[in-house]
Amino acid sequence: MQLHLHISAGFDESGRESLGRQLKGTVLTHGSEPHPETQIWSTGSASPETLDALPQLRGIIVPWAGVPEKLIEALQTRPQISLHNLHHNADATAEMAVALLLSASRQLPRADRQIREGCWGMRFGLPEPTLLHGRTALILGCGSIGIRVARICRAMGMKVVGVRRAKAPTDPTWMHGFSELQSLLPKAHALIVTAPLTSETRGMIGAVELALMPPGGILVNVGRGAIVDEEALFGALKSGHLAAAGIDTWYTYPKGDEACLPSRFPFHELENVTMSPHRGGAASQVEGERIKHMARLVRALATGDSSICRVDLARGY
Amino acid sequence: MQLHLHISAGFDESGRESLGRQLKGTVLTHGSEPHPETQIWSTGSASPETLDALPQLRGIIVPWAGVPEKLIEALQTRPQISLHNLHHNADATAEMAVALLLSASRQLPRADRQIREGCWGMRFGLPEPTLLHGRTALILGCGSIGIRVARICRAMGMKVVGVRRAKAPTDPTWMHGFSELQSLLPKAHALIVTAPLTSETRGMIGAVELALMPPGGILVNVGRGAIVDEEALFGALKSGHLAAAGIDTWYTYPKGDEACLPSRFPFHELENVTMSPHRGGAASQVEGERIKHMARLVRALATGDSSICRVDLARGY
Repeated sequence: MQLHLHISAGFDESGRESLGRQLKGTVLTHGSEPHPETQIWSTGSASPETLDALPQLRGIIVPWAGVPEKLIEALQTRPQISLHNLHHNADATAEMAVALLLSASRQLPRADRQIREGCWGMRFGLPEPTLLHGRTALILGCGSIGIRVARICRAMGMKVVGVRRAKAPTDPTWMHGFSELQSLLPKAHALIVTAPLTSETRGMIGAVELALMPPGGILVNVGRGAIVDEEALFGALKSGHLAAAGIDTWYTYPKGDEACLPSRFPFHELENVTMSPHRGGAASQVEGERIKHMARLVRALATGDSSICRVDLARGY
Repeated sequence: MQLHLHISAGFDESGRESLGRQLKGTVLTHGSEPHPETQIWSTGSASPETLDALPQLRGIIVPWAGVPEKLIEALQTRPQISLHNLHHNADATAEMAVALLLSASRQLPRADRQIREGCWGMRFGLPEPTLLHGRTALILGCGSIGIRVARICRAMGMKVVGVRRAKAPTDPTWMHGFSELQSLLPKAHALIVTAPLTSETRGMIGAVELALMPPGGILVNVGRGAIVDEEALFGALKSGHLAAAGIDTWYTYPKGDEACLPSRFPFHELENVTMSPHRGGAASQVEGERIKHMARLVRALATGDSSICRVDLARGY
């Protein structure tokens, strides 16, 4: 069956050309406003009005991991439209999570800054790096990213526990439900947030949860900033209760090209944070993967199979 | 049997106290000059004259990984003295190797510097991070550190090959001898140096070897600086043939507390290097491990077993 695919987000010109070659027979248009005959729409947002102006729309693909809550809301009353997510960059994001974990435990940017000035003070001095081997990593959100992080942490000799929305009967014993988060935190030397932002995960890690972690712990966030309470995180790093953090997903994002600090709190003045500008999912090979995953998903939708990478509107991911 | 253990290096006052408690009955002295009745000596260096003034000396323990070539030379004509190395910090050094690999592939210190100024340019811009998943890691020197690095790289979805001095019949198929280094380099996206400095490894990675690596590769060195040719490494990073490097072991070290750049080449002006002041083996839990390993080794020597952690003078490790 021929489809009309409209691209508003996720693919530049060369990506669209490549998609076009892989989806021969598909009508492919692009631009911020969707074509009136759009059946499948690649976009990160959609107003109710726009959705109502697209009578043939039956699938929305958010071409990255994570779906805005507003989009989920808008689709809850429009069951004829299935919502999908691309998880093509799970490997890249998992590598970023481990990169930030290790960079935080070693305080690499701080050491790098110092030795570039000729200062070797961190060679034998404080802060001592934390050995991760033998410690426990708690992974919050155990989807395609979290599972990969768990595997790498285990190879480093860490104990790993995971929490996800609901433990399934087929889950391994190290997996737990969200309800067990607080009882697991006191042993979590490293808390690694890989969860999507949903109404349940928003603010899930607040002052209470951080205080439950053992002193000297490490927090990594490659999920979404708002899962971790901004003020509580800053406070725990400033006081030293958390030894370090590695943060890729933030609280404040730039509009356009102007300079923009990533939080209303001065994280940029803290020495014990490795700060990254939300590039967990990026890597040189990832664009090719995005196109492959997109083509596979569109082909499935063309055959009437809307199960692939489908977002459960109730769960939010 | 009672022993006289003299500590010149490796243990501070609290470390010596702890050793004393674990080695009841052992006579324990300390100071840069060894006690004349020293039987076991913890030190990083020893002149021939000093060795000849210690008639009862039968074991030297270098209380960290790696043995200076001069010490090996001095012991070659003194077979009554066995030489030992502590490998207590293999986990810490392996974590540093992976930390530097990931930090280099993501250029974390550079991204951190930028976002602290409010600049998000690396979010979507160049340089693109390299996905390590699916790429090949070549580990140079596959002792207690290299084996651990191999396990972690494999968990990240990398292919791993190792080269060591001589492939043993019991080695796995991914292990090769030094003689195969050049034939393996063209596929080595990441070259991770964990080898000790010996007469064989000194300068083993030169301009020829770096040129054999694919463009865009990454070099990590947690072994010793002099294994990688200083000028060739700087050139390959400056030209961009190497996309990035993570370096913990250097060419120039400070004497005392004065500021000291780690090379005669301006590595500190390069954006694509993660620089660390030789602290691979350091971690908060490592001192306890050092004491445990030391006590175990001294107890074995006391029973006449000189096989533990013994350095083969011919191999140099």
